[in-house]
Amino acid sequence: MFLTVEGVEGSGKSTLLTALAVRLEARGTTVLRTREPGGCPLGARLRPLLLSADWTPDPNAELFLFLADRAQHVAEVIRPALAAGAHVLCDRYADSTIAYQGYGRGMDLEWLQRLNDCATGGLWPDLTLVLDLPAEAGLLRAARRNEAQGLSQTEGRFEAESLAFHERIRQGFLDRARRFPGRFRVLDAALPPPALADQAWAALRMGAH
Amino acid sequence: MFLTVEGVEGSGKSTLLTALAVRLEARGTTVLRTREPGGCPLGARLRPLLLSADWTPDPNAELFLFLADRAQHVAEVIRPALAAGAHVLCDRYADSTIAYQGYGRGMDLEWLQRLNDCATGGLWPDLTLVLDLPAEAGLLRAARRNEAQGLSQTEGRFEAESLAFHERIRQGFLDRARRFPGRFRVLDAALPPPALADQAWAALRMGAH
Repeated sequence: MFLTVEGVEGSGKSTLLTALAVRLEARGTTVLRTREPGGCPLGARLRPLLLSADWTPDPNAELFLFLADRAQHVAEVIRPALAAGAHVLCDRYADSTIAYQGYGRGMDLEWLQRLNDCATGGLWPDLTLVLDLPAEAGLLRAARRNEAQGLSQTEGRFEAESLAFHERIRQGFLDRARRFPGRFRVLDAALPPPALADQAWAALRMGAH
Repeated sequence: MFLTVEGVEGSGKSTLLTALAVRLEARGTTVLRTREPGGCPLGARLRPLLLSADWTPDPNAELFLFLADRAQHVAEVIRPALAAGAHVLCDRYADSTIAYQGYGRGMDLEWLQRLNDCATGGLWPDLTLVLDLPAEAGLLRAARRNEAQGLSQTEGRFEAESLAFHERIRQGFLDRARRFPGRFRVLDAALPPPALADQAWAALRMGAH
């Protein structure tokens, strides 16, 4: 079982993944929890580059760095874990590239799909949960989280992008979910975390169609 | 004028570029000498990763890292220098991706061409010099150079690849030169460095056809 969680900044992906991992492990399931970017040693070196607001990457350089992280992550971490029978829970994956680089930056969606197929070797999740939230509410949450951690309110390069950029990303995830209804479940990220975890758990137990 | 130099390990690219830069500058030309990977701040962080023998990258991760370096290098360094009227001399460029990942690792050549077009935004050199040498002779030279610098004889990840791999790369460069005769000049890298520099200088003064 390969589960990914997607959504705008501050939509609660990390909190939800913790809750799902706890429930799965309580049932004796082996869980590998990971994320993109940064889920393998290469990614750990690329993540600060990718999220840092200290430089302005060329859009294609940014795209290729995410794809490099993904290719290595799939080969080194995700595929071996799936082969060993683990449930893999991943915070962001190939759909984020479609949403951010495609809907956000305006790159060609078919081209991004082809690049994703190359980077993943065709490995798509069994189930993808989209935590849906108005972009403004998500950014507000992300800013509070950053403040609580003593960081600047718009700590990351992506968090510092315009509200319109984040609204396009939200619409990107919703479009993906409409296009691939068998793989996606859209959840209301404004729900209290326990209720959101219950809905995610129900989706996970039903599996993908 | 955008000039690139290509060739197997140890073919003398760096020595030749120094000689050409000296001659161009003596004529009052502004020269930007650069290289791939590593010709921009992003690339300087990626280069040790790309060349290190300490890890085994997934082939697609390797490919995407080279492309990320190239996209940033073109946008941040090469295009601005050309726009400012400089002669840009670059040690390896997009043809190396075709030779190493295509001929060396067996990836689809048309796919690599499309990725290169994306990373470069369609910027191809005016002139590409291929320093041709049997792979075995080149590797021997590279090993001597590494030894002189106190490094292991097969210091880099690519230098540690098989002789057959490097022979395929040599053939890749020669195939490219046959396919694009207007842009390429093949030079005999076994010549003494001053004679090689004379031939390269003649090619450069004639320009690309």
